[in-house]
Amino acid sequence: MSAASPDSPAYDSIAIVGVGLIGGSIAAAVKRRRLARRVVGIGRNRERLDAARASGLVDVVSVSMAASEQSELVIVCTPVGRIAADVREIAARSRCGSTVTDAGSVKGAICADLAAGLPGGVSFVGSHPLAGSEKTGWEHADAVLFQDRLCVVTPCPNDCSAAAPFVESFWQAIGMRTKRMSPDEHDRVLALTSHLPHAAAAALASLLSEDLGDFTGSGFRDTTRIAAGDPNIWTGIFLQNARHVDEHIGSLVARLTQFRELIASQDEAGLRAWLAAAKQHRDRLG
Amino acid sequence: MSAASPDSPAYDSIAIVGVGLIGGSIAAAVKRRRLARRVVGIGRNRERLDAARASGLVDVVSVSMAASEQSELVIVCTPVGRIAADVREIAARSRCGSTVTDAGSVKGAICADLAAGLPGGVSFVGSHPLAGSEKTGWEHADAVLFQDRLCVVTPCPNDCSAAAPFVESFWQAIGMRTKRMSPDEHDRVLALTSHLPHAAAAALASLLSEDLGDFTGSGFRDTTRIAAGDPNIWTGIFLQNARHVDEHIGSLVARLTQFRELIASQDEAGLRAWLAAAKQHRDRLG
Repeated sequence: MSAASPDSPAYDSIAIVGVGLIGGSIAAAVKRRRLARRVVGIGRNRERLDAARASGLVDVVSVSMAASEQSELVIVCTPVGRIAADVREIAARSRCGSTVTDAGSVKGAICADLAAGLPGGVSFVGSHPLAGSEKTGWEHADAVLFQDRLCVVTPCPNDCSAAAPFVESFWQAIGMRTKRMSPDEHDRVLALTSHLPHAAAAALASLLSEDLGDFTGSGFRDTTRIAAGDPNIWTGIFLQNARHVDEHIGSLVARLTQFRELIASQDEAGLRAWLAAAKQHRDRLG
Repeated sequence: MSAASPDSPAYDSIAIVGVGLIGGSIAAAVKRRRLARRVVGIGRNRERLDAARASGLVDVVSVSMAASEQSELVIVCTPVGRIAADVREIAARSRCGSTVTDAGSVKGAICADLAAGLPGGVSFVGSHPLAGSEKTGWEHADAVLFQDRLCVVTPCPNDCSAAAPFVESFWQAIGMRTKRMSPDEHDRVLALTSHLPHAAAAALASLLSEDLGDFTGSGFRDTTRIAAGDPNIWTGIFLQNARHVDEHIGSLVARLTQFRELIASQDEAGLRAWLAAAKQHRDRLG
């Protein structure tokens, strides 16, 4: 594809740091839509990076952050506990005017850490593309994982640069809807819609002794499916979003306490109403 | 099909009381395997019964329990709160030597209610075929819903009749594995593997306000899917199994409390171990 062709790519070079399920799916979406002349994959495992390049997912691979220096957009897809440090390392090696974003599930701690800004005219804007899987690794990368899904974009407070619209237009270019929120607002909402279900599913799964697997049906399996997610990734998420998650677990326990009172008192009408209200909430999701 | 044919049906007549998803799926399995010369469907809604007959799901329909009188096996698939009364009504109209079973999700209350035995030489044995769906109605009947699944059979205490093996052989004939348990043992296990997940999913679903639907992904959806189940059916189940369900909710809350302590103290190693243990439990289920 030449620069002069009518479908000239919108980006010259995009770098992805952390080529796993999320980073790999972003790369696959960029490739499928021919959005960039070059996709750079940066990671820690040379062998796995070479295999990702051989599969056609990325064009260039490196174990050095310096490989991002020619990219106008760098997307950091490492675990949340590493993102801020990775962003700083990239900023130190990037050209002036380039933009760095991420794909982390918690935004407050990262944005607070980077709020003072980055050196060398590099901008950071937080992102959280809302899609995922309990699978890991670029082998499960899916070019349509993000299609029609929501991406929350969280500029750091006081950021009035053009970086946020630039990042939003990227997510839109791979088929996502975008919504701008403050980092704390994002974390409070995601603690409820994503982190709390994980904690509840894991608590439930942990109660099942091995001999009782035969007595589970699709209900137990559906309800606990996400508990199979990577403990390393989720440890970082819960540590960074502890306050909001704790608050929502409190609300969940309060609902369960209400429920216990209804069954203990054999309150048939109250129990039916409680279950009907929950069903109504669930039915809205489709 | 004539009585003299080589594939003569194993049963002359089987009656199903309550032709919904479960009763309908049993009828469909009996039909597919040509196990009975005649399948009788008994219910309360004449119009829906006629439609079930017209679809070929059952051969004869009636709104009267008396229609079961020629059947050697009657399977009561009504909501748990009605089963014991329905079994008594059927027993009063059945021929000597016939067997009645059910498909209810709670066994203790029903078996206790019927422990004194039935008149007229009719036997009752509790059953719980472990399969289901959040869908309702015979239109969703599925001839393979029970295929390779487990059916728990709970003879009433002191029952030493041939009724339990007779009922077990029926479930095996439609492709199920069977396991005999005491009614209380069944209820304790199912409170954990089926009723607790429903309570947790419903509590979680009830926390989601309407404006946050856009922030949910497959995790929230999977984890709360069963909360869409019929509140009437689940009200009966929770009322009858209140003691065991309450105990397991207590265990769930204790796990969540452990989890809150780990995130509040930012105990990274402890949190990772807690999540890894939950994942190990979940991974065993496949």
